[in-house]
Amino acid sequence: MITDLVRKNRSYRRFYQEVPITLETLKELVGLTRHCASGGNLQPLKYILSCDSEKNALIFKHLAWAGYLKDWEGPSEGEKPSAYIIVLGDTNITKSFGCDHGIASQTILLGATEKGLGGCMIASIERKELQEALIIPGHLEILLVLALGKPKETVVVENVGSDGDIKYWRDSQAAHHVPKRSLNEIIWK
Amino acid sequence: MITDLVRKNRSYRRFYQEVPITLETLKELVGLTRHCASGGNLQPLKYILSCDSEKNALIFKHLAWAGYLKDWEGPSEGEKPSAYIIVLGDTNITKSFGCDHGIASQTILLGATEKGLGGCMIASIERKELQEALIIPGHLEILLVLALGKPKETVVVENVGSDGDIKYWRDSQAAHHVPKRSLNEIIWK
Repeated sequence: MITDLVRKNRSYRRFYQEVPITLETLKELVGLTRHCASGGNLQPLKYILSCDSEKNALIFKHLAWAGYLKDWEGPSEGEKPSAYIIVLGDTNITKSFGCDHGIASQTILLGATEKGLGGCMIASIERKELQEALIIPGHLEILLVLALGKPKETVVVENVGSDGDIKYWRDSQAAHHVPKRSLNEIIWK
Repeated sequence: MITDLVRKNRSYRRFYQEVPITLETLKELVGLTRHCASGGNLQPLKYILSCDSEKNALIFKHLAWAGYLKDWEGPSEGEKPSAYIIVLGDTNITKSFGCDHGIASQTILLGATEKGLGGCMIASIERKELQEALIIPGHLEILLVLALGKPKETVVVENVGSDGDIKYWRDSQAAHHVPKRSLNEIIWK
């Protein structure tokens, strides 16, 4: 069961923008993180939720999409995310967030996947500009932006080839191919 | 469903040590991480698996347990983990692992939970000593140790009180209490 969910949970970057995600759904997803592990149980993460078109547009313009796809500038109108969860680190609690945002973000995306949604963890962010646009106070550090929506693309996981190249790519049908390392490669003997 | 799994997945520190975990199970759990997101899809994580008593003992002595429980030095013989997964960052691939180890470790622990197992992400590690004890080459950086076993303790999640204290504690019945912040506190308006 978790295997199916983990496999289904791909990084999606094109969505049925017309399918809305409610604030209630975003709260439910963030609610999952309350039950996650956190270094020293400090729980320093805060979340900004966005599911209206105006706020979404503000966020969208400060994100970079799919670094390896040089000819693609990101989802076009109609295929943009319906919602975002911005993951922040509260520096009033700690200066060091360890991997708490990874634990929380994976949990949120697994929850979204179960609901038939999908998304992408974006770390390539114009942080200063986004911080100003949303009037985020300085003690909250932008760690990740999770883009969410109903996925509108096919993602194919395949094995890394003999050249060792891990760059994802799109085929002529616009299917997104993601090379993943073998179990043999990642287990250290 | 994922909600149940996330809630059931607590940080456990005492186990039925006599219940073994097979190498096959550890491989299956690490196999889940092959389908996880990774910054730039670099997949820099490597894993060391341990499920025999000799290797387990080597690992155990370089871990610190439950920092807030000052009177408890860690699980005693009979309650120690049956297995470990050491999460390493391969600096030949990148020097910056982002939160990849959080994404992967949460996935492994959710997988373990589904199997009726449980564990704890441990970051308080005598890294240099463990690196030497297991003859881990210098280009592999120890990020986390995941302790795994069949849980032998009750963990109670409760709301952080008005004093804001997030330190976990044990009651007279040795149940482990973990204060978690409210949804209201972690959502930034």
